[in-house]
Amino acid sequence: MRLRDARTRIELIDRALCLRLLANDEVGRLAVVVGGTPVIFPVNYVLDGEVIVFRTAPGTKLDAAGRSPASFEIDSFDRGTRHGWSVVVTGRLEEVDEHGTKELERMRALSVSPWADGEREHFLRLMPDRITGRRVGSDAVLPDGQDRSRGT
Amino acid sequence: MRLRDARTRIELIDRALCLRLLANDEVGRLAVVVGGTPVIFPVNYVLDGEVIVFRTAPGTKLDAAGRSPASFEIDSFDRGTRHGWSVVVTGRLEEVDEHGTKELERMRALSVSPWADGEREHFLRLMPDRITGRRVGSDAVLPDGQDRSRGT
Repeated sequence: MRLRDARTRIELIDRALCLRLLANDEVGRLAVVVGGTPVIFPVNYVLDGEVIVFRTAPGTKLDAAGRSPASFEIDSFDRGTRHGWSVVVTGRLEEVDEHGTKELERMRALSVSPWADGEREHFLRLMPDRITGRRVGSDAVLPDGQDRSRGT
Repeated sequence: MRLRDARTRIELIDRALCLRLLANDEVGRLAVVVGGTPVIFPVNYVLDGEVIVFRTAPGTKLDAAGRSPASFEIDSFDRGTRHGWSVVVTGRLEEVDEHGTKELERMRALSVSPWADGEREHFLRLMPDRITGRRVGSDAVLPDGQDRSRGT
């Protein structure tokens, strides 16, 4: 069955599939609000249950931790066929406390491996309030081979 | 010559190349602030000079027009080689006024063609205040064939 946004008619992706798509990728975009302006950063991440985990150096993303809501997005677009999908997670960004050693050790054991050079010894996590997914292009095939256009 | 962010050591992309990358793509992500929360939408767009132009139906993106700063991002990542680049445009989102007929006609002549079904008769534009680009992975090749790792 296809779920569609009543207003935009865009097809929705259910939460379980959103989580599978999040589990299968490793790079997305984090948006935080800095001085009233939304700021977007590409980030490497890992999914820890339903929580998005990043490593970062001190800076803007870290400064926003605990102070503002954040959103995180992954997507895939085929420009040739004009099809694609996106998943957006909105929630609260928080730093994994240096003093919470067990949790910090668990974070270190997750394979969050930033592509960028430089020290990134801080861990951030986005605690999800809302996970939504959308597909555009009526015959889009999702990357797990689940072709929704056939009604599966 | 390579430009690097002094803090993160991430390599920067100059403005001219950012604009070429923006001109060569057609899908990106728009972030606006709604009720203090950053909201990310994938959007089809066209570059009009240095202005990002979208078509949209009435809704959240449109409601944010003229009320808050916005950011727009494009990127490309190669998960196999762990290289990629991103361009972020930050500025003011505004609706192209229905009554400004000459400008609206000019917008209609631009080939902004959303992939999603449905009526999208409103035009939005992001007037850039700031255009920045970054590369991660030290040997990244940009899509116009300009291999910065060779010092060109």
